[in-house]
This record gives sequence, structure tokens and C-alpha cells, in this order.
Amino acid sequence: MRLFFTLFFYFNLSIALLGQSKPNIILFLVDDMGWMDTSVPFGDSTQSRNRLFKTPNMERLAGAGMRFAHAYATPVCTPTRISLLTGMNAAQHGVTNWTSPWKNDPTDSPDEQFSPAPWRVNGLSPIAGIPGTVHATPLPQLLKEAGYFTIHVGKAHWGPMGTPGANPYNLGFMVNISGHSAGHPQSFLGTQNFGNLPGKASVQAVPDLEEYYGTDTFLTEAHTLEAIKSLQAPLQNGQPFFLHLAHYAVHVPLDPDNRFVQKYIDAGRDSAEARYAALVEGMDKSLGDLMDFLEKKGVAKNTILLFMSDNGGLSLAPPRQKPAHTHNLPLRAGKGSLYEGGIRVPMLVYWPGVTRAGSRSEYPVQVEDFFPSILEMAKIRRYHTVQEVSGQSFVPALRNPELRDPQRVLLWHYPNKWIGTDGPGINYHSAIRQGDWKLLYNLRNGHRELYQLREDPGEQKDLSSQFPERVRALSELLDARLSQWNAPMPVPRDQ
Amino acid sequence: MRLFFTLFFYFNLSIALLGQSKPNIILFLVDDMGWMDTSVPFGDSTQSRNRLFKTPNMERLAGAGMRFAHAYATPVCTPTRISLLTGMNAAQHGVTNWTSPWKNDPTDSPDEQFSPAPWRVNGLSPIAGIPGTVHATPLPQLLKEAGYFTIHVGKAHWGPMGTPGANPYNLGFMVNISGHSAGHPQSFLGTQNFGNLPGKASVQAVPDLEEYYGTDTFLTEAHTLEAIKSLQAPLQNGQPFFLHLAHYAVHVPLDPDNRFVQKYIDAGRDSAEARYAALVEGMDKSLGDLMDFLEKKGVAKNTILLFMSDNGGLSLAPPRQKPAHTHNLPLRAGKGSLYEGGIRVPMLVYWPGVTRAGSRSEYPVQVEDFFPSILEMAKIRRYHTVQEVSGQSFVPALRNPELRDPQRVLLWHYPNKWIGTDGPGINYHSAIRQGDWKLLYNLRNGHRELYQLREDPGEQKDLSSQFPERVRALSELLDARLSQWNAPMPVPRDQ
Repeated sequence: MRLFFTLFFYFNLSIALLGQSKPNIILFLVDDMGWMDTSVPFGDSTQSRNRLFKTPNMERLAGAGMRFAHAYATPVCTPTRISLLTGMNAAQHGVTNWTSPWKNDPTDSPDEQFSPAPWRVNGLSPIAGIPGTVHATPLPQLLKEAGYFTIHVGKAHWGPMGTPGANPYNLGFMVNISGHSAGHPQSFLGTQNFGNLPGKASVQAVPDLEEYYGTDTFLTEAHTLEAIKSLQAPLQNGQPFFLHLAHYAVHVPLDPDNRFVQKYIDAGRDSAEARYAALVEGMDKSLGDLMDFLEKKGVAKNTILLFMSDNGGLSLAPPRQKPAHTHNLPLRAGKGSLYEGGIRVPMLVYWPGVTRAGSRSEYPVQVEDFFPSILEMAKIRRYHTVQEVSGQSFVPALRNPELRDPQRVLLWHYPNKWIGTDGPGINYHSAIRQGDWKLLYNLRNGHRELYQLREDPGEQKDLSSQFPERVRALSELLDARLSQWNAPMPVPRDQ
Repeated sequence: MRLFFTLFFYFNLSIALLGQSKPNIILFLVDDMGWMDTSVPFGDSTQSRNRLFKTPNMERLAGAGMRFAHAYATPVCTPTRISLLTGMNAAQHGVTNWTSPWKNDPTDSPDEQFSPAPWRVNGLSPIAGIPGTVHATPLPQLLKEAGYFTIHVGKAHWGPMGTPGANPYNLGFMVNISGHSAGHPQSFLGTQNFGNLPGKASVQAVPDLEEYYGTDTFLTEAHTLEAIKSLQAPLQNGQPFFLHLAHYAVHVPLDPDNRFVQKYIDAGRDSAEARYAALVEGMDKSLGDLMDFLEKKGVAKNTILLFMSDNGGLSLAPPRQKPAHTHNLPLRAGKGSLYEGGIRVPMLVYWPGVTRAGSRSEYPVQVEDFFPSILEMAKIRRYHTVQEVSGQSFVPALRNPELRDPQRVLLWHYPNKWIGTDGPGINYHSAIRQGDWKLLYNLRNGHRELYQLREDPGEQKDLSSQFPERVRALSELLDARLSQWNAPMPVPRDQ
């Protein structure tokens, strides 16, 4: 017995010390949340749309840490989620569109000009040789191998049913709650069993939450409770954890969160917008509950909290209030578009002892940068990946709010058709940004637009005819990168 | 960095030492498997029904460890599963029948004489104050608190939707794969998505296995693969694990396992029986795969493997081949009955260094004994439970195959109605065993039967009229125990 207790003492002591050595890391990923869908101003100042949303806990997090004014995701969800887990640009990993729940099923809308690009319709695979997938070493796998307790809660959407990517356990997660092939929940409502009604369940019915069936627990709340529950064991054992809390909010369906919706209705808000604002506030409460929990447990100071959205805010109407393409103003357009409204997203990082309270960074970030950044935060310096990682760590920017990188090239590639009728920057576009200059390229007709984002964040003034050299230079850079990565391209039907 | 590596070294060293100090524990729980559904003879010798089944891996486990000839479960599944997790007899925890997926829903068949007994229809709850539940400290919670990595894979069935017991995470499991409120799978077939077909999914559709959808992976195989996957992290970290691998096999539906079914058909077996034998063999392969994995990883010598079934073999026909109540011969009747065929089950324990190879024990075991036994195996000596534990550790029997306990009292209580028409020992019975004597008590009419199990394991010769004193003594013992535990009793309709 004495030997055992002695060993147990050292066990707890050493993993407690290890826990202090390796920080806990939480990635709080929101679905379809636009850059303006928050009371935190990510631009230079608070603007009118910021006042439509109540996100006191995002304010709290922004007050404690750093907000990024120029953080980017891809225009739809799966590419972002795979970039995050692989460190690859979407043009590089080739999963350029959202994946279907069914395998070998391109989700592109039918088009007269193009048949679907040869994108990797089966998503991410940690195993080589699965057709239609990108084979890569996933971030959670590296964290698990380094001793982290790795947890996924919420939306996964890394691959279709019948493929390894459908199962977060294959991607290095040790715990999976609700993650599967679906990209949205059938229902946010516990009273609807989150969709799991006999004979009515679709492939989007949310698994693993039977405890809450028939109760008025909103999905965001259920996932928060489960996430907090999952932290008990690593906290008890002093084992560092990586929590990937990927909320289904604020994706459609715009189910009413009865905890919050009434006050937006009372304020005269349109019904859809009231429900949307309530989805946002419910997500914000989750963030606050998680921060409260970390503080109560005394581990907030050793926990890095990253907040990110997977693409711009949905701006189709319906389901949002008309007029369409206005929901991210002053940014142009929304989800699906390569205009800023579709790709620029709210990003916050609180790293106790590193980030400066209430700081704001204009350092350019693409979502694949999370991969090397999180590994650096976890002090994992030597690791092997089967894929070539193109993301760059933003840790230097966390240490220095004044850091800029005007030479950095950011790139988006969407050789897909998201909706039936093309919208602003929506369907078949590529884009590239360097410094303040952004080139938008229309893959349908070769049309090019050029914007100076510092002066014109709303992308209203196309400067392409004034700066043909800049257009040419950015076009060449774009072509070279797409060609280097062997990026999928739309296939003309007449070929 | 040097500090970090030093700490990491001690971390691995100390948990590796701790891992050696605390054994890994696997509870391999089979559903509805009868005492004779195996080529391992649990009786004195191999009998005809043993020859109907191919279970080479059970033979391997029995050859390495100890088989128990007198191990008992409850007559249906949920009571056994809750006894296992609480250490309480079913008459004591009050969840005497299988729980519905829906809460507040007694599953008893309608009866003219009785309205349902006030049994705890909402199953097990780790939280006080949930109506219709037994509040208890679950076994995995104690193991988790002692540093075990606790994993549930497969059938849970500890409580209905909308209650805490529906969620294995609430019971101390750190990983849950497929455990929910359901008591059987909608389908064993990957080609049927285990039931998860849009618009066709019932509450028995099996969650968490999308990776295998549309493939010919049988459910037993999928759960084996997932269980093995889940062991990676604790093995890597040298953390002791508790794996509760609770197969849905060999419960109905008798879906064909195409890996095994044809040879039983070719042998001229009835279609239902061929499919049943294939379910058994698939379960046996799972056991073998798990043992192979442990050996390959070099941890077999530090892993205790317990094999158990949750009740006797199903003996209704259909779905089994006619005649009914013959499928556990020489034992009488089957699932649902308090005759031996309904409650006596195959049990094996392999504890390297403790159990003697190929040994057989006649020590009497009830399923609630697993609770204190597993805690003793895990060297957890001081622990607090909110419930009173009535199970007794069978660890002394593991150390000594000759150990007997003729004074021990075993008790079963089923104040419920399982099927519409009463069968042999089925519906509204209690029973008690001491030494070789067993009393069966019919709650409908007060009728008593007395059997001498050593001479008459098939319970053919009712000796009650020859031994009235023994009937009286056992009846008093039964009454006293039921009364002490405040066991639920059927409620006559005319009261």
C-alpha cells in the first residue's frame, strides 16, 4: 500500500507539473458567424450592426485578450474545418466545398457551364488510399500523442458517412460528443430531441444527447454542459486538454432559443433576425459559462482560449430578413462569397500571460494558421505530418499587437457552385490578398476586380483598370499558387 | 525545455509504474447469451447444445482463466446492468424490469390481476431527486476518480431518454460509443446504417458509427474496432483503463452475420438458429480480437478480463426455433424466467497471475458482486457510495477454485410482466437460493416450488411437499430480504 500511495502521489504530482508546463487549449468554433454578428467591434469602431447583438462574454474575452481584425476562414464550412485540422489551404487540401453526408456525392448545384470540379468530396482521411479524400495527419492526433486529452463536442463535418473522416475518433479525438457527417443540426430543440423523433430523423439528427430529450434544453446549452462534463477527468488528473467545442450555432435552422428570443422580438426585430440574435446570444452564454468554469476550477490562467468562426455570416434572404447580401455590412456579401462578408470572421485569442488585455491585431490570419499556432502553444516542436503544412503560426502576433506582415499572401479558392443563382462573389471564384490589396477572380468569365481594403473594406471601388500591373502581379501569384497546389478547377461542360 | 523533458519523463515513468500497480480491467458483457450458447461447458461436461456453437476464443479465455458454473444475472437486461454499476440486488435498487426508451413508461405487459408494481421505471441516476430512479454512485465514477480511463462501448440501457441515466458520461465513463437509452439495436447491419436510415430510424438506431454506414461491417465488429481504438490513448499514457464492452449481440433482431452464418445453414441448421449461432460466433471473434490486441500491445499480463452475460438465453419461439423454452437445456426455460435457464449465465474471469489456467469454480456469484470485485481488483479500498452495496467480492474465489459458500443467499425478484402470456417461471416470480436449494415463489398465486439444484439442475422435481420446513425457512428468508429492501411488489387491481 505504501508503495502504491507513493506512486500515486508522484503520478498526481508529475502530471500536475506537466499540466502547468503544457497549457490547456480550447478552440471555440462557431458556425456561420459573421464578422459583425457581435457587440465586439472587430473593425476600427463600433458600427450599427454591432448594436444588434448582445455578446457580453465575447466582450469579456476580447477585454482579456486580443481580437484580430483581419482573420479569415473559407467561404463555407468543411474547407475551414479541414484547414484547421491539417494546416493546409483549401486550394491545397482540395476539399473546397462542404461535404455531403453521403460519400462520393458532390454538393455543387447543377450548372450549365461547368460540371463539378474534381474536388475531394469525401473530406479528410487520416488513412491513406481512401478515394476522394485528402490524406493528412490531423491536429488532434499530434496533440493526443503529446499527452493531451483531446475532446470534440458539437459539429464535426470532416467527411461523409462510410468514410474514416465521419468519425472524430479517427482524427485523434479521445472523446466525441455529437460529431458526425452532418453540417447542421436537424433541430436545436431538446423538445424535438434535436431531430431524433422516430420516423422523422434525418441524417442531421444530432447524436449523443438523449439526456436532454423532451426537455427545453437548447442544443448550444446541451453541448456546453457536455463539454464542461468532459473536462472533469483531465482536470482531476492534471492532464492538459484540448477542447474543440464546435457549436452548431449560429447555422440555420433558425430555431428559437426561448431563453433569449423574446427581448429581440419585443425590440421590434424581424422574426428571423430575432431568432438569429438569440442563437448568437446563446453561443455567447456558452462562452461565458466555459470561462466561469475555468475560473472556478482555478485553471483559467493555464488555459488558452481561441474563438473563431468557420465562414462569414449567412446572408441569403430568406432565411434571413431581406434584403439579401446585407447582413455583414459594412463588409460586402456573406457566406459562400469571396467578398469580405463571406470570409472575414471574428477571431479572439486569450493566452494568459502572453496576450495583452484588450489588444487588437491587424496581423493577417488564415484559418490554416491555427494548426501550427496551436502546436506551438502546446510546445510541440518536433512532429511529423504526411501533408505539407502551409499555415503559419500567429503566435508572434499574439506577443506583439503591432506586428504586421504586408508581404503575406492570403488565398481563397472556391471552384464550386454553392447556390443555384450566382450572387455577389458567390460560386466559381478565387481571390488573393497581399497587404491591403485584394484581387477577386471570377472563374466563369475571367473577370478580375481589385480592391484596396484599408480604404475600401466594403469592396465598392473596383480599381482593376487603374492598377493593371497590380492586377497582373496578383493574378500571377494566384495562378502560381493554385498550380503549385494542383487545386481543383471547374470543368467546362463543352470540353 | 530540459525541465519539461524531465517532467515528461517522470510523468511517463510514474504513470507507467502506476499502470503496473493498477491492472487494466475489461468487462466483456454479452446481451441475452444463455448458459449453453457456447462450446465452453459450464456444467460438469460438454452437452449436446454446447456442440451447436463455435466459441474458440471463449475456450481460449476459459483455458487461461476460471469459469464459474453458478454465476447468475437477473432475468432481463436493465436490472443486471444497474446491479453491475451499483452493487445492488435488483430487489434493492428497484429497477426490476427493462427500462423503456421513454421516461415514466412502465414496460410491463397489461395484466388483469395486477397493475404495474411501483418499480423504478427511470433507471439509474447518479443525481439525487430524479423521480422513478435509483440514486447511486456508479462503478465507473469510482474508477475514474481513482485514475482509470473509463470507456463504455455498446449497449448501455441504464435509463430512458430525458434522464441522466441515458448518458453514460453521467455515470463516470470518459468515453461513450453508442451507449444510450435503447435495449437493442434497430439493426446489426452496416448496410442498413444500423438503423439510421432517414425517415426509418427508430429510437433503437445505433449512434456513433457513421464510419461504417453502407459497409458490410456487422455491429459487433464495429464496436470491437471502436473499443480497440479507444484503448490507444490510455496505453500510450500508461494510464490504467476500465473498458466496459457491452455488445448488443446476441440480442434480437437475429440479423445474419455474413461472416459466419452460411456454415450453420450448410450444416442444416434452422434459419433462426443459424443466425443466432452466427451472432454468438461474431461475439466470440470480438473477444479473440481483443485478446490478440492486448497480447500484441504487451499488456495482456496486466489486464483482467471478465466475461459475463446479462440474463439467460432468449427462449421464445419465434423468434427462436420452436419449441419454446428449450434453448437453454438442460436448464429450464430462458430469458424472463426465474428458472435457471433465465438467470444462470456464462461467466469467465482471467486474472493473470491470480486465476489458475483452466479452472472451474462452483462459487455462487450474483451480478451485483462485480461491483465490489472490480473495485478490489482495482485496489480501490476506501470509497464512498450513496447506496448500500449488497454484492460481495468474488476475488477470494478467483484465488481458490475450491472455495464454496453454502450459506450464501442468492435472490431474484421479478414483480413484473415480461410477456403477455405467462410462461415457465416467467412473469411475477421471486426466487431464492442457498447452497443447493432453490425456492421459486409465484407472486400471482403464492405457489411455491423447491428444487435441489445439484441433483436436479433442470428443476424437474418439485420437492416442496417433501421438505416443508425448508420451504418455510427459505420463504422467510425471501420475505425478510424483500421487506428489508422495500422491494417493489405487484399491485392487485382489486385493491
